[in-house]
Amino acid sequence: MSSPAHEINPGPFSYGRQWLKALLPSKTLNNRVVELARKAKNLGKDDPRKVVHSLKVALALTLVSLFYYFKPLCNGFGVNAIWAVLTVIFVLEFSVGATLGKGLNRMLATLLAAALGIGAHNLAIIFGKTGEPILLSFLVSVVGASFTFLRFLPEMKVKYDFGLMVFILTFCLISILSYREELLIIALQRLLTIVVGSCAAIFVSIIIFPVCIGEDLHNLVAVNLEKLGTFLEGFGAEYFSVPQEGVSIQEKLFPRRYKSVLTSQESEENMASLATWEPRHGRFRFRHPWKQHRKVGDLTRECAYKIEALNSYPFEIRSRIQEPCTMISLETGKALKDLASAMQEMVQSTSVDSHISNSKIAAENLKALIKSGLWEGVELLETIPATAVVSVLLDLVVCTEKIAEVVHQLASLAHFKSNMTAERSQSIGRSTIRPMSSIDPRENHVINIVE
Amino acid sequence: MSSPAHEINPGPFSYGRQWLKALLPSKTLNNRVVELARKAKNLGKDDPRKVVHSLKVALALTLVSLFYYFKPLCNGFGVNAIWAVLTVIFVLEFSVGATLGKGLNRMLATLLAAALGIGAHNLAIIFGKTGEPILLSFLVSVVGASFTFLRFLPEMKVKYDFGLMVFILTFCLISILSYREELLIIALQRLLTIVVGSCAAIFVSIIIFPVCIGEDLHNLVAVNLEKLGTFLEGFGAEYFSVPQEGVSIQEKLFPRRYKSVLTSQESEENMASLATWEPRHGRFRFRHPWKQHRKVGDLTRECAYKIEALNSYPFEIRSRIQEPCTMISLETGKALKDLASAMQEMVQSTSVDSHISNSKIAAENLKALIKSGLWEGVELLETIPATAVVSVLLDLVVCTEKIAEVVHQLASLAHFKSNMTAERSQSIGRSTIRPMSSIDPRENHVINIVE
Repeated sequence: MSSPAHEINPGPFSYGRQWLKALLPSKTLNNRVVELARKAKNLGKDDPRKVVHSLKVALALTLVSLFYYFKPLCNGFGVNAIWAVLTVIFVLEFSVGATLGKGLNRMLATLLAAALGIGAHNLAIIFGKTGEPILLSFLVSVVGASFTFLRFLPEMKVKYDFGLMVFILTFCLISILSYREELLIIALQRLLTIVVGSCAAIFVSIIIFPVCIGEDLHNLVAVNLEKLGTFLEGFGAEYFSVPQEGVSIQEKLFPRRYKSVLTSQESEENMASLATWEPRHGRFRFRHPWKQHRKVGDLTRECAYKIEALNSYPFEIRSRIQEPCTMISLETGKALKDLASAMQEMVQSTSVDSHISNSKIAAENLKALIKSGLWEGVELLETIPATAVVSVLLDLVVCTEKIAEVVHQLASLAHFKSNMTAERSQSIGRSTIRPMSSIDPRENHVINIVE
Repeated sequence: MSSPAHEINPGPFSYGRQWLKALLPSKTLNNRVVELARKAKNLGKDDPRKVVHSLKVALALTLVSLFYYFKPLCNGFGVNAIWAVLTVIFVLEFSVGATLGKGLNRMLATLLAAALGIGAHNLAIIFGKTGEPILLSFLVSVVGASFTFLRFLPEMKVKYDFGLMVFILTFCLISILSYREELLIIALQRLLTIVVGSCAAIFVSIIIFPVCIGEDLHNLVAVNLEKLGTFLEGFGAEYFSVPQEGVSIQEKLFPRRYKSVLTSQESEENMASLATWEPRHGRFRFRHPWKQHRKVGDLTRECAYKIEALNSYPFEIRSRIQEPCTMISLETGKALKDLASAMQEMVQSTSVDSHISNSKIAAENLKALIKSGLWEGVELLETIPATAVVSVLLDLVVCTEKIAEVVHQLASLAHFKSNMTAERSQSIGRSTIRPMSSIDPRENHVINIVE
């Protein structure tokens, strides 16, 4: 560590060196490249869609640069045909939703900005050779300032951030160039090249192995549910198993994969917003109820906060409450996992309700057990951690029920398939089977619509 | 709601209409504009720095477009001088850290890509008129695919995402244009205009009302602590006050501002990463220990999860535990608020330790009270919610102590001022006052360095 005196007053030269340090590899370059290559390989293995996306970018670039090499078509465009290539790099994103959003934003913003730019030019020439650049500079400033400010507004930022930036870009380009060049031609060239680039990007994004962010969101929500379920299924058994001195519950419990659920809100919101751009794909209609996914996600997080609290209680054994507690965590865990797989397969879940009622029965048993004077003779202070665990588990039952309700709503709004063909032979009219076309998820009548 | 049958099978025309709906204002345009203006006004009032940023963008645009109008200087550049303007729009961000990061990324990436583009061109001309475009297309594809893939790597994404994109852009531009134009001139023009644009953006960002993201991160962490503190201070009194039938604790408690703490992880990480680009500013040295801020942030979130659990317990009165419980939440609340204000003012906090020891005393009292057989005669089942609250409160004492320790570490690493002038007359050598230059936060000796 360098001395504090040195760190307090570094000269400008020291800044430069430290910037270079921050910019350049801290280990030897060789090590770093090897490590990066290893990580890249793992990334490609974990999600091959990312490799495919890279190849898609290459394809789109080649497609658009062909447009450039094809002389007769773009001789009129000159250097400006390069905008088509730049557009592909900006617009082609990993998911169809993001690509469509950016493409539409870019085309529309260019159209509006080009029109406004031409208007500004026509206004400016009235003021003559001296007034023109002054007025144009003024307009550029005003548009730059006001649209930059608009980008801060949350409702604009979510959907139109890229569009606002492209608007500023194009408006500045057109107004500044208009002072020297053939204005209308440049505006048209820019619009056309950008339309070509955007369309190429959208085409490649949709036609070749499309990645739908809506599907990713759907899976993320389901996987999060499943993580909680897996944790809860194992929690009871682990928590009440043979105690080991010096091993805290945190270390003892299997890897806590559910931790990522705690911080998934922002990405869920982003994905839900991008998903609204996407057309019908696979199992999802256009205007799929993505809001419902966010509701499930929020409740899942609420549940995860409770589990996080569960996790912080010291490791104790209360063998007499072991059975109902284990049962509660096992059954809520199974219910959550069932909901997760029902979501993933987009079918109406049939076994969730039975798991939930099992967990409720276990909760009642637990309450009865405690009522029967379970811990008489034990000092109250010592029962606190166990009581806290009981309290959280009882809470989890309620929370799981809420999640099930929202997933049922989603199933009804998004027309999940019912599993009836399989189940029907066993029990006709079972209340957990919901009709495909029921609008109100709370109604339980069964209608004979199968597939 | 439209009929489900209609939603299941919309024609292509319906898609178009729905896209338009998603794109265009859903209310009448007039209403929407008025609403937007109102929101923009509020935004400007809430954070005037955003208005200032917009004006800074306008200024930088004007500066750079002057460069364009100044004919003798850029006659050689032709249309390409516009790149300087575009660079300003891309690079000038709200904070100094983001602007520096983007500016350095853009300049360095352009330099490397231009050099590589020239190399590619020299390689390609060996293959003659036919082979040249084929080889160049191939190289563009390879660079496009590999750098797009690199952008997925988390360690690249955090700091170099923009640089990688600019690299692809410039490389494509140079290689594709090289087929038709004077290559070296274009490469140099691009490099120079981008350097001019980046420097203008960085200059404006640093000189005029600089906004340092490091300071924002520092304040965010402090404000989050303060939110928890405020909540806890009020919690005890509210929770144990006169019960009202039908009012749940959720509705009863003052607005739960701490909720935002639960989801602040991602923004804290982003800010900490951008802050590393920033030079010394105000109270922060270059290479300020931003990691310590993230530690405080993480512990604050842990604390917030516990509070979230606290919040979900049903509203009950246990008047006999009221006093110590209220004391614990009040004292931990005060301790957190003190830590927050100590961070905000960057002074060594003097009163935190006394609040923490008060809360510990209250915790011991509570334990003693419970040990004394407080709830004998009350059914155990009914005590569960109260016991759970007790358990969380006892946990919070531990968590607050941890936060205090990390803030003390930060205070020592970042050389917070000690409050000694004020405190010294009262008690010299008080253990909570830390010396300005102490390296080990656990050492408590006082050195005579004041201001």
